[in-house]
Amino acid sequence: METLLEKKIYSTTPFVSGKWETEINVRDFIQKNYTLYEGDSEFLAPATEGTKKLWAECMDLFKKERENGGVLDMDTEIVSTITSHGAGYIDKSLETIVGLQTDKPLKRSLQPFGGIRMAEASCHSYGYKVSPEVSEIFTKYRKTHNQGVFDAYTPEMKAARHAAIITGLPDAYGRGRIIGDYRRVALYGIDRLIEDKKEQFASLSGEMRPEKIQLKEEISEQIRALNEMKELGQIYGFDISKPARNAKEAIQWLYFGYLAAVKEQNGAAMSIGRTSTFLDIFIERDLKDGIITESEAQEMIDHFIMKLRLVKFARTPEYNELFSGDPTWVTESIAGVGIDGRPLVTKNSFRYLHTLENLGTSPEPNLTVLWSTKLPHGFKKYCAHISITTSSIQYENDDVMRVTHGDDYAIACCVSSMVVGKEMQFFGARANLAKCLLYAINGGVDERLKTQVGPKYRPITSEYLDFDEVMERYDDMMEWLAGLYVNTLNIIHYMHDKYCYERSQMALHDRDVKRYFATGIAGLSVVADSLSAIKYAKVKTVRDENGIVTDYEIEGDYPKYGNNDDRVDELAVHLVKTFMNKIRKHYTYRNSIPTMSILTITSNVVYGKKTGNTPDGRKAGVPLAPGANPMHGRDSHGAVASLASVAKLPFSDAQDGISNTFSIIPNALGKDEVFMGDLDMDLSLDCGCCEDNIQ
Amino acid sequence: METLLEKKIYSTTPFVSGKWETEINVRDFIQKNYTLYEGDSEFLAPATEGTKKLWAECMDLFKKERENGGVLDMDTEIVSTITSHGAGYIDKSLETIVGLQTDKPLKRSLQPFGGIRMAEASCHSYGYKVSPEVSEIFTKYRKTHNQGVFDAYTPEMKAARHAAIITGLPDAYGRGRIIGDYRRVALYGIDRLIEDKKEQFASLSGEMRPEKIQLKEEISEQIRALNEMKELGQIYGFDISKPARNAKEAIQWLYFGYLAAVKEQNGAAMSIGRTSTFLDIFIERDLKDGIITESEAQEMIDHFIMKLRLVKFARTPEYNELFSGDPTWVTESIAGVGIDGRPLVTKNSFRYLHTLENLGTSPEPNLTVLWSTKLPHGFKKYCAHISITTSSIQYENDDVMRVTHGDDYAIACCVSSMVVGKEMQFFGARANLAKCLLYAINGGVDERLKTQVGPKYRPITSEYLDFDEVMERYDDMMEWLAGLYVNTLNIIHYMHDKYCYERSQMALHDRDVKRYFATGIAGLSVVADSLSAIKYAKVKTVRDENGIVTDYEIEGDYPKYGNNDDRVDELAVHLVKTFMNKIRKHYTYRNSIPTMSILTITSNVVYGKKTGNTPDGRKAGVPLAPGANPMHGRDSHGAVASLASVAKLPFSDAQDGISNTFSIIPNALGKDEVFMGDLDMDLSLDCGCCEDNIQ
Repeated sequence: METLLEKKIYSTTPFVSGKWETEINVRDFIQKNYTLYEGDSEFLAPATEGTKKLWAECMDLFKKERENGGVLDMDTEIVSTITSHGAGYIDKSLETIVGLQTDKPLKRSLQPFGGIRMAEASCHSYGYKVSPEVSEIFTKYRKTHNQGVFDAYTPEMKAARHAAIITGLPDAYGRGRIIGDYRRVALYGIDRLIEDKKEQFASLSGEMRPEKIQLKEEISEQIRALNEMKELGQIYGFDISKPARNAKEAIQWLYFGYLAAVKEQNGAAMSIGRTSTFLDIFIERDLKDGIITESEAQEMIDHFIMKLRLVKFARTPEYNELFSGDPTWVTESIAGVGIDGRPLVTKNSFRYLHTLENLGTSPEPNLTVLWSTKLPHGFKKYCAHISITTSSIQYENDDVMRVTHGDDYAIACCVSSMVVGKEMQFFGARANLAKCLLYAINGGVDERLKTQVGPKYRPITSEYLDFDEVMERYDDMMEWLAGLYVNTLNIIHYMHDKYCYERSQMALHDRDVKRYFATGIAGLSVVADSLSAIKYAKVKTVRDENGIVTDYEIEGDYPKYGNNDDRVDELAVHLVKTFMNKIRKHYTYRNSIPTMSILTITSNVVYGKKTGNTPDGRKAGVPLAPGANPMHGRDSHGAVASLASVAKLPFSDAQDGISNTFSIIPNALGKDEVFMGDLDMDLSLDCGCCEDNIQ
Repeated sequence: METLLEKKIYSTTPFVSGKWETEINVRDFIQKNYTLYEGDSEFLAPATEGTKKLWAECMDLFKKERENGGVLDMDTEIVSTITSHGAGYIDKSLETIVGLQTDKPLKRSLQPFGGIRMAEASCHSYGYKVSPEVSEIFTKYRKTHNQGVFDAYTPEMKAARHAAIITGLPDAYGRGRIIGDYRRVALYGIDRLIEDKKEQFASLSGEMRPEKIQLKEEISEQIRALNEMKELGQIYGFDISKPARNAKEAIQWLYFGYLAAVKEQNGAAMSIGRTSTFLDIFIERDLKDGIITESEAQEMIDHFIMKLRLVKFARTPEYNELFSGDPTWVTESIAGVGIDGRPLVTKNSFRYLHTLENLGTSPEPNLTVLWSTKLPHGFKKYCAHISITTSSIQYENDDVMRVTHGDDYAIACCVSSMVVGKEMQFFGARANLAKCLLYAINGGVDERLKTQVGPKYRPITSEYLDFDEVMERYDDMMEWLAGLYVNTLNIIHYMHDKYCYERSQMALHDRDVKRYFATGIAGLSVVADSLSAIKYAKVKTVRDENGIVTDYEIEGDYPKYGNNDDRVDELAVHLVKTFMNKIRKHYTYRNSIPTMSILTITSNVVYGKKTGNTPDGRKAGVPLAPGANPMHGRDSHGAVASLASVAKLPFSDAQDGISNTFSIIPNALGKDEVFMGDLDMDLSLDCGCCEDNIQ
């Protein structure tokens, strides 16, 4: 019997009815039931003794991990699946929310479906060895995504990848950037979700073309994954077949949904979605009915966030170099405003941020505030406070994104917005536009490798670069690059669907998902400045013994991107528009919608290493500027001018997000306590999204 | 050194040059080099002592196999791949041509890629058990064709399959009916073939749509298979990277190509192609140069054929019931006439048939004479002789098929013609048109299961069947059946390509293969007679307690198919045309060309078991007539009239072949020794192909 004499554990207060009862519609449930909180942070509870003790144990594990060279333990025998491991705990007696990727905390799981070589290499680099049986299975019998991709790559694709004009491709492990609507597990329970998927399956009849057969098979796999999620619950002693009956179950059920995803997929970004306001509805009900206290509520959130901090994947040193660590981008999107104008801020929005105080700062989960000028003052103030004290919040512009995505989208990775459970993204890394410019000058010959990588177009032979001539060549070379890039991604996504399909995450999506085909560019400011130098100064070529241009001498000065100077900013805008339109010319896998991001946070360092001297005076090997940033030090007209340049970039041509890494010291903003409301207005007006995420 | 003092083993006589030297073109090699033989069988050599001894050992093994309940041994540990087993021999010292599917003769190989459940069931039925590791791999990590298919089947497809209105579907094991051009291995050696495949791969660039990505990956898999074939040669001590240098190598190289196929695929029909005239070129050269004697030539052919007789797969009792045994349809197409008018008969055409004398009769390999009125008299006579003495030759009409296929096609299975290395078939089993008629009468309710399987169209409610009403309902029901059938096959072939692709067989095909989408019908004569009864006699319905028609009473007589009576024969023609046109309405996988066969040799027995009483008076469970045959005993106007009815069926609407099982006792043809030339003229004029293959 569910009734306890001492304490009630399940509320009997019904939720407000709505469409969410007759169809899978989490947004409707949220809109009908959430409690806007416009107060301040006074109500928050500190970490409980249990939390402190548990987190100390985690900190101890992290320390051991560092001491052990970056990895504590690795699974070399058991292939990670939703149900591959028995129950694992940090400290069972203290945990209010349970579940680990393997049987022990921080033991990296073995995920060979994306690529057995990557799995082997990551083990090898930390002194482990994948069991010969597993290696044999994934070599002889079970082909991986990575093998599939390389079975279809053209020599040109391999060369472009090797030269790093196309780079960071997810062709050797999971592609990531897909967010399951993990809230569905809590709201509906697995049985109802299976029932819904069975209806979806039945709805696909008639002419059986490959696309429909593929979708039917995928739904069957999704149903299989849902059944396994139920088993995963059972492994930890929970029956998640039915909806969650209280806050604790809601958090636990939701987390099991997410845990299934990270047990199956090791994508670079495994984001969690937009869960805080959803969970607040359960917490608020339990609080009102006296089932839990604020301290208990915070404890559960702390423990949940702790679990997300423990999510780790087996990576190679090259991967870690590219990303300056081994981030997981467990991005949680907090707050934002509803399309009816009500902010989506709840007490739980505070609780999530408060974990940065209760547990200390951390880059993961990537707590991202969907910022709007309309957010309540109390919340804005708390955000400012947490930003100042922890430097661990990412801000993104809800006022911009709400226009296209409504009010139930979330951010995958850093800046990729998608409506939860209704949209997904094919992650596509990036094309190096700076290198492309060098190819335009050298007729497709790579300036570092000295080999023909691009098409054998006519190189520029003059001593001084002529702007019109360079632009014409550059346009041709971008045309080539866009086509090659899209087709490379087409192969990757075809193979990922074939060999490493995200069945558990897609099980928490609708049947007809809107798919974005995400591309990205790197080196924007380097190219803008280079073109500006060619146009407004004189740029002399320096050639090697084979006539390949290897360096540039600039005579005179030129306008630099990042100073709100239209002469160069318009070159940047032109680049974004032009390249995006060239991307749009091509067929994209599953008729997905092409988008582009101007986003690199750390990988710009590695891309810079692989790019020779550029006509803007940047030397070979020097990092490119991150994302849409001006080159470091060239934005000499102050922060506002710098932001203004970035803000000119058209979001409609870079809908997968524009990132601007912006560091600021508190004193720069004034003498008193910072009031974020003012600064944020600038930020949100200025650029698609701003990044203050120090990892 | 290759030169022997005692005996030269490699001829230095060059072959006649041609396009075959600069492109992969076996036909050109044959046309330029073969030696037409118009003589009689006098030259043939009897079995050597070695052959007799070796075959005696095989016969002993077959006996043991029978005594052991149908299977001698089964592999339960090693998954069969091209290189999975070490060398295996019957008796190494006696064998001139070597190579077995596993390490021992008649040991059935383990082939789970088509379906692990089928592999497990076949082992189980003979008292073996697939190793738990293999079962786990093919359940947890490596999905099979069978699982893929059932993940996409609609409930309607499953119901239609269960009710057997669509039946014999290759959805649980290899689909078969693909013929690699195994001759290429001998003529070109593997290295040249790999080089060609690499060029094909490189030729696929530009826009990467799924179809192109699929083909690119397939070619990569083909190259992998070719490399493994080379390894297979090495396992037996041969270097097949280079072209065969003499007859022995040519036979051996060719056989390795085929052996790779049967190690990877367990399709119902694993035919070998059209190899005899090709091999004769090598034999003829060696004979002329005194490298081998006729006796040695025959010995090699005997040993080669012996190997083909040993090809076996692990099957289930249900499979064996369907096919009255466990046939492999290792069909070899012999003779025929070139498009320049020269018959393709060589001495080797005789040698192949002569194996039936040297080794005794056998249903396998399925020796199929491509019959033409233009075949040389000596060969015709020898065919007649062998047919009479062994009853083991199948005849098919080259004069009909040459028109569409030219002179280098071969038969896969029983009647499916395809140009070797240039065309392939998606095998599609058959739709039961007799049951479809019962569905038309009962509004989609299955007469045996009493459940709704077809659409809920209006049933016929009158006591007596009205011809026009029945025809209208039947047309609607065929419309439904054709669509369901094609879409079921679309799923099967999509999944077979995905999970059980024939990489080694397709490695011996051109890049752009013409694909036939083979459908088939069963119950033609039952339906023709039923419709005739309804039209020309009176057919009274007998209903069960639920109003379902379960039996029919015929009042009066009616014209029966098989008596050259246009009144009913035209109904049969109409059915063939109508159903084929309904098939043609639908999308077929990979834009393949839909074809249809009227072909059942043994499976008509099982189909009949699953079909209720029919309006022609046939009782429930009684076998349908095989293929295009009249119902047994109803062709009361003699052989010629019976054949004339069959001959009216339009080949253009049944291009995958029309089979007529025709048994005749020698005395029926006259008092003297039979002269086949006359009879054959009738046969070849009368029907697409005639079957005299007693299994």
